[in-house]
Amino acid sequence: MIDPIGALSARLGERGWLSGDDAEPYLRDWLNRYGVVPMGVARPTGTAEVANVVKICREAGIAIIPQGGNTGLCGGAVAQQENAIILSLSRMTAIEPPDPDSLSILVEAGVVLASLHEALQRHGLIFPMHLGAEGSARIGGLIGTNAGGSQAFRYGLMQDLVLGLEAVTADGEIWNGLRAVQKDNAGYQLRKLFSGSEGTLGVVTRAILRLFPAPKKRATALVAVADFEAAVAFGTFLRHEAAEFMSALEFFSEFGVALVLKHLAGIAFPLETRGAVYILIELAAGSVCVPLDEILGSALEWGMEQGLVIDGALAMSEGQRAHFWRLREEQPEGQRLEGAQLKHDICVPPGKIAQYIENGAKICEFIIPGVRINPFGHLADGNIHYNLSPPEGDGFMIEKATALSNALAALATEMGGSFAAEHGLGRSKIALAELLRSPVERQLMTTLKAAFDPAGLMNPGVIVSSSRQRKTFR
Amino acid sequence: MIDPIGALSARLGERGWLSGDDAEPYLRDWLNRYGVVPMGVARPTGTAEVANVVKICREAGIAIIPQGGNTGLCGGAVAQQENAIILSLSRMTAIEPPDPDSLSILVEAGVVLASLHEALQRHGLIFPMHLGAEGSARIGGLIGTNAGGSQAFRYGLMQDLVLGLEAVTADGEIWNGLRAVQKDNAGYQLRKLFSGSEGTLGVVTRAILRLFPAPKKRATALVAVADFEAAVAFGTFLRHEAAEFMSALEFFSEFGVALVLKHLAGIAFPLETRGAVYILIELAAGSVCVPLDEILGSALEWGMEQGLVIDGALAMSEGQRAHFWRLREEQPEGQRLEGAQLKHDICVPPGKIAQYIENGAKICEFIIPGVRINPFGHLADGNIHYNLSPPEGDGFMIEKATALSNALAALATEMGGSFAAEHGLGRSKIALAELLRSPVERQLMTTLKAAFDPAGLMNPGVIVSSSRQRKTFR
Repeated sequence: MIDPIGALSARLGERGWLSGDDAEPYLRDWLNRYGVVPMGVARPTGTAEVANVVKICREAGIAIIPQGGNTGLCGGAVAQQENAIILSLSRMTAIEPPDPDSLSILVEAGVVLASLHEALQRHGLIFPMHLGAEGSARIGGLIGTNAGGSQAFRYGLMQDLVLGLEAVTADGEIWNGLRAVQKDNAGYQLRKLFSGSEGTLGVVTRAILRLFPAPKKRATALVAVADFEAAVAFGTFLRHEAAEFMSALEFFSEFGVALVLKHLAGIAFPLETRGAVYILIELAAGSVCVPLDEILGSALEWGMEQGLVIDGALAMSEGQRAHFWRLREEQPEGQRLEGAQLKHDICVPPGKIAQYIENGAKICEFIIPGVRINPFGHLADGNIHYNLSPPEGDGFMIEKATALSNALAALATEMGGSFAAEHGLGRSKIALAELLRSPVERQLMTTLKAAFDPAGLMNPGVIVSSSRQRKTFR
Repeated sequence: MIDPIGALSARLGERGWLSGDDAEPYLRDWLNRYGVVPMGVARPTGTAEVANVVKICREAGIAIIPQGGNTGLCGGAVAQQENAIILSLSRMTAIEPPDPDSLSILVEAGVVLASLHEALQRHGLIFPMHLGAEGSARIGGLIGTNAGGSQAFRYGLMQDLVLGLEAVTADGEIWNGLRAVQKDNAGYQLRKLFSGSEGTLGVVTRAILRLFPAPKKRATALVAVADFEAAVAFGTFLRHEAAEFMSALEFFSEFGVALVLKHLAGIAFPLETRGAVYILIELAAGSVCVPLDEILGSALEWGMEQGLVIDGALAMSEGQRAHFWRLREEQPEGQRLEGAQLKHDICVPPGKIAQYIENGAKICEFIIPGVRINPFGHLADGNIHYNLSPPEGDGFMIEKATALSNALAALATEMGGSFAAEHGLGRSKIALAELLRSPVERQLMTTLKAAFDPAGLMNPGVIVSSSRQRKTFR
């Protein structure tokens, strides 16, 4: 057998094959919890090169870890074993001109989300995916984790926005599913299956994405409410009243606001009265004829009359709007600067958010008295980032952290929700899946994995654990 | 081994196991092209019974053909072999109360779509799936074929509307994936994979569906345009101008209108001027503050100024609206009454509809001079029902029909579209898939099928042909 590393470096060239110090930036995950040093980092420039890399690795029995922007929070894009390479899509960044008549665009997997937003701006089109990491997250990774973000309830998750897909299979074959239509039912929905498969079934190389006309009008409000029950009630009202215009309905807590104001410079609190919970509402319409301010204004009035809303303000300028959004977007950063934290990406039916937060708080207080809860997230789809800071001056013990994670995940499951909303399973949540999902479901996933990747070389240990994989395959 | 038919009839009882004349209504497909007489029809009343039926059949090596409303157009819900049973979901019709706060509802697979619409009416909620067969089509079948319909571009296909799913696997195990959240990324998207799998991977038994607030306002217009190019240009304009309000953008042709007026009683042509193509536009808004009539009226004015629109009318009453819709909905019936016909369910990127119809017409004229084309469908997502009537007084020869079907499917494929838009592959389009989809794609599907159904008993011969199945499995 030839030397696989020699073959990879010869084929990919100096910029395409990184090892030693050059490979450093690719090796650890965003939260610096995962990442064994692999044999190197392959950075191919096109689909055919990706296929070659996969074939060489397959021949040599080397594991392949596809990596996009490496912004994932579950450790799914770095190596778990030395006998592996990281396959970075970071040099595949081509964006074709959009098709405004068909509302679609062809992009390579390495395109950074913010670059796509920028490229569409002058065409009056949007790709409606927005999340904190958009300055680094790449399309392939967003597809791999089936990202959601703040507009998912209106426009969908990545799986809903992918029309066509191209991927390299575990065999190193190129699957060209680059069709530019929503209605394609010629068999199993492979495009949907690859979305959320976290690089374990193959490598996404290109995608045709669904676009929308850019809204012509926008209205943004920040609202303070007394508690989570009021937040949910007002959220339900808004979803029924503002229906198709609603493009964001974000919530965060007084504790989170306090952390942001404490740790970050240049942010003033924009309302007169503090609440226990805040809601950031954004409406966007494709027609200038829609009286968005009136719709939002009268919704706020209704909320005040009902005693749901304590205080609120409509953004009167782009600057004020950015200010409102910063309060929401800096929630993770404010908490990071406070010290140790535990992140939980939970989803429950939207009507049950208050109930979840209340019951979750009891569990937390029971396991760690005095633990500080900073729930924020997406009111319209029930996605709660239920993040915890330890009691002031304390840290987290690993046993308590695991107990909390298990209990909060079980609670979401009991309530008809999920313990893995928009971050995927990666490596960090497999134990939860084994604990909380049925043996039938886990077996279906193992079967699927074994069918698509019988050698078990595509991102092993992600979604399906390596030990389960060994037991099932062959 | 026990007698499997005896076991089935004993377990299911008189109403649950049909054979002989009683089984008759279940045996042939909608177009009366497919259906070998099977051993009988099982009609279980719940998920556990479905699992039992699957286990008995599996033990005895009997094929299982899941059937919903049996309205499919590709022969996917009837038997191809005698050693089979039809598993009808028609007795599983429970509808739970909807959850207005979380906008979801739990239903059994046998619920008829129109019954669901009706059940939601008094709650001010909608399940936004509308298609011709809604009076008979059942939820399980709609999921199995990943149905689309007239509102898919706004609200999505069935796969987009399924939050949670329960299915019985080929092993007779019950997979409970009944979560009520959009954001659930705990591994592979099984709910999306079962959507569109046409009963070949398992039997869908229950689903949690996504609901939306009922629109509070609606505006409907019928417009005549000079040709398909004008239709596409006006459609693009409308999609950009009426953005999120657009809930239907249907088209049909002068030939189709002539057939409807010729064969169906009680329909008058509602405009003053005839065009070559007609567009039915429907806007719906969740807020009463949206001036829909003004938005639609000024779009029509713009269309006239641009020379795109020849004539048009806004529906001034519910009766007039129903009249406009009838012209569109009776297109299949008008053509059926004209005599022999060939149906093609094509999808192309919406901007290419005119080009497809023009090039398609040349192909048709070349293969059968004088053949009459009746294209109608969904302008916003590019879904064309490209149906043909033979030259007056003629029929279709099978060789020519096959040549036409192949050529039209190839044309859609070349243009970045699909030859199987919203009807699935069933049995009738497998040959097209083998012809036009890559060996890599077909192999991925065969691999998937073999993994989920190694014995090949779940709806054999659908999606993956029986001969391919025999070659690959075991």
